[in-house]
Amino acid sequence: MPEHRIQPRTLKGFRDYLPEVMLPRERIMDTARRVFRSYGFSPIDTPALEYLEILLGKGSDETDKQLYRFQDHGGRDVGLRFDLTVPLARYAAQHIGTLGTPFKRYQIATVWRGENTQRGRYREFMQCDFDTIGTHNEAADAETILVVHDLLKSIGFENFIIRINDRAILNGLLQEVGLADKSTLVLRVLDKLSKIGPQKVLDDLRSVVGATSTQARQVVGLTQCAEGNIDVLKKLQELGTGSELGKLGVTRLDQVISLVTAVPGLSGIVRIDPSIARGLDYYTGLVLETTLGDLPDIGSVCSGGRYDNLADLYTNQQLPGIGASLGLDRLLSAMEELKMIEPVRTPAEVFVPFFAATRLGDYLRLAAELRSAGLGVEVYAEPKKLGKQLQYADKRGYRIALVAGDEEFTANQCQVKNLASGESTTVSLAGGAAALTAEIRRILAT
Amino acid sequence: MPEHRIQPRTLKGFRDYLPEVMLPRERIMDTARRVFRSYGFSPIDTPALEYLEILLGKGSDETDKQLYRFQDHGGRDVGLRFDLTVPLARYAAQHIGTLGTPFKRYQIATVWRGENTQRGRYREFMQCDFDTIGTHNEAADAETILVVHDLLKSIGFENFIIRINDRAILNGLLQEVGLADKSTLVLRVLDKLSKIGPQKVLDDLRSVVGATSTQARQVVGLTQCAEGNIDVLKKLQELGTGSELGKLGVTRLDQVISLVTAVPGLSGIVRIDPSIARGLDYYTGLVLETTLGDLPDIGSVCSGGRYDNLADLYTNQQLPGIGASLGLDRLLSAMEELKMIEPVRTPAEVFVPFFAATRLGDYLRLAAELRSAGLGVEVYAEPKKLGKQLQYADKRGYRIALVAGDEEFTANQCQVKNLASGESTTVSLAGGAAALTAEIRRILAT
Repeated sequence: MPEHRIQPRTLKGFRDYLPEVMLPRERIMDTARRVFRSYGFSPIDTPALEYLEILLGKGSDETDKQLYRFQDHGGRDVGLRFDLTVPLARYAAQHIGTLGTPFKRYQIATVWRGENTQRGRYREFMQCDFDTIGTHNEAADAETILVVHDLLKSIGFENFIIRINDRAILNGLLQEVGLADKSTLVLRVLDKLSKIGPQKVLDDLRSVVGATSTQARQVVGLTQCAEGNIDVLKKLQELGTGSELGKLGVTRLDQVISLVTAVPGLSGIVRIDPSIARGLDYYTGLVLETTLGDLPDIGSVCSGGRYDNLADLYTNQQLPGIGASLGLDRLLSAMEELKMIEPVRTPAEVFVPFFAATRLGDYLRLAAELRSAGLGVEVYAEPKKLGKQLQYADKRGYRIALVAGDEEFTANQCQVKNLASGESTTVSLAGGAAALTAEIRRILAT
Repeated sequence: MPEHRIQPRTLKGFRDYLPEVMLPRERIMDTARRVFRSYGFSPIDTPALEYLEILLGKGSDETDKQLYRFQDHGGRDVGLRFDLTVPLARYAAQHIGTLGTPFKRYQIATVWRGENTQRGRYREFMQCDFDTIGTHNEAADAETILVVHDLLKSIGFENFIIRINDRAILNGLLQEVGLADKSTLVLRVLDKLSKIGPQKVLDDLRSVVGATSTQARQVVGLTQCAEGNIDVLKKLQELGTGSELGKLGVTRLDQVISLVTAVPGLSGIVRIDPSIARGLDYYTGLVLETTLGDLPDIGSVCSGGRYDNLADLYTNQQLPGIGASLGLDRLLSAMEELKMIEPVRTPAEVFVPFFAATRLGDYLRLAAELRSAGLGVEVYAEPKKLGKQLQYADKRGYRIALVAGDEEFTANQCQVKNLASGESTTVSLAGGAAALTAEIRRILAT
């Protein structure tokens, strides 16, 4: 026994993932990878630790404060990445000559922020980003929307809306009304619209940004156009024609809408929403958010936008692009709330009790045969009482138990127990495991 | 333009993963997950950052020195995990009541060590571990070997040997010859056997451990039994019968060998090797290493063993178990050396040139139909010259290009170009994408 025991605990704002939480998490990540790959996005990875100068001053004052930073063994100032966009910019600047453009990448990785945990935030979380770099073309804009659609569909959502806007429309209006030099502040206020409502935004535009009442009303007026497709576009055109930039935004939105609605299934799902601002200053074209029809209040589960220059802090090569990020944690809690997640603690379907103590070799062989047929099979690790073993299987969410003792093995057969219904059937093993596999698949399909 | 540019670079000992490296990496991780799951191992995850007291003094003096440690925003002493075993011990101590036993988990995650990079080591790397916790039964020992076999086979290796030994045999001998109290030092010397050879081990046992010449010869003698199965077992029994512990080890090895060889395909692959020591003190039973027949010199690509007590530093509950770890980086460099990795930079198979500028909607729709059929399809993002686009496709390793312009779309057909052979066929799109999908699958199968 050790001299003194250490209390096993995790740091505040950090969490352990138990199997029942990790299983749906891995399923979503698998699905995201599959969707990204189906469009030709390639995986990349970057170090968790970067030179501090790479990270510092790249987000907001807040992200600077939240940085986990320290000196490494060589006395270098280093920090843990707080997002995947800053490392992507550094990576693109460093490797774009080798990679070539357009460069389409995805990255699913952990990031760290010393957040205030009182707001229910975690200090370690997963980001799931994809970007197309090196092109201004609307093909990439349309594709980004298609990817978001496929992501949500593949994860299992039927009822969702992808809201799109073009940053040029707002920027055009800001030029017109004389607020162009305050766009960063305006964006930050507008981004809170869905949370604080138009009246408070009006107030903040005056008090925080220093806009006049007329200016504030014009900005809020733009965001309050009723949602829709063609109608809104027309209204935007009326509002935005004053500036060339506004016109450009409307034309681009029109193009993107007609491109994506050429793909079956997309027409009802994509909607122009002039209230979408996205707080980040660096977006210059299409911006998008995704809301769940059944849980609109949780906010966007997948957001992104187009930028003119990804990496100007690290290279003089201009790298325009577009990308979006899937909110993994938000999506998972939504799925939990919508009862889309089965409470399962095992990734396998079939449970084999270790019933006859002298038959372990037979159990292992039987399980191996079923695995060759593509089934997941756990053989219990100890020859305990059958009841105890079945309790274990039940607690973990196994669907089927294969019960076989000396008698069954001698007769070359085994019992297939449907753990949901409690029914058992006896299956012959005489012709190999084919009949058994078929019976298991029959039960799994019910 | 920013005031000054920052040099885009990674920290020493850290690396960016380009797509051609990341793709095989993800494929191995996918395969490992699939194999683990097929045995009922569940995924878990733990934080990258732990309280320093959880990590400190748990590995060796070396891992203590290599720890990335600092104070967080709340003044807590924290560190980045240097392996997945220490966090697992902490996790098990904390959650085993909820999890129940046996608990079977896998974890594929990043760890950090401030290693000396002159030895070609990286400071950030991925570990890929699986463990069965809470049982002494040999069922778990046999299963661990089966999992290692399935891992290597599924990744694509045909020629490999899983070498096993039982720590009790060595410990029994150490008791006999009076070196039991120096077992930690003996293990550390023996673990270098394959690198430094038996003569240097003899010398080190004398000079480092302080063994007599007779003691050293007896220990080295044990490790030099010729490899094999039954014969070696018998020889071990002769050598080991002096101690009860040695006998126990031989009996257990005999059991495990007969269990795993009950599974077809395993008999030639598992071999008893009395020279396997594994440096770690905490192993008490089965130990295993895996060597590639075509590259024996790179050392073990998958290693592990049985322990009596995983988490005694954190809990008074005894948690015996067995686990192993797949050496992802070593395996990848072996696969590269053995030309098992295709130089591909895209995860998709089909490339669609953006050829006719006004037909983008048609390209997007066509690609969407193929994706619904399970194919990976990239539509090029810009209407550049066809030659340039095909160069892009070639550089990335696309297998097939679908070439269609105004003429083809009007005639409701498209050209399927096999990029390896250069051959093209014209396929009708009149009945939907079915004929096209069939032709693509035909080419992919060649």
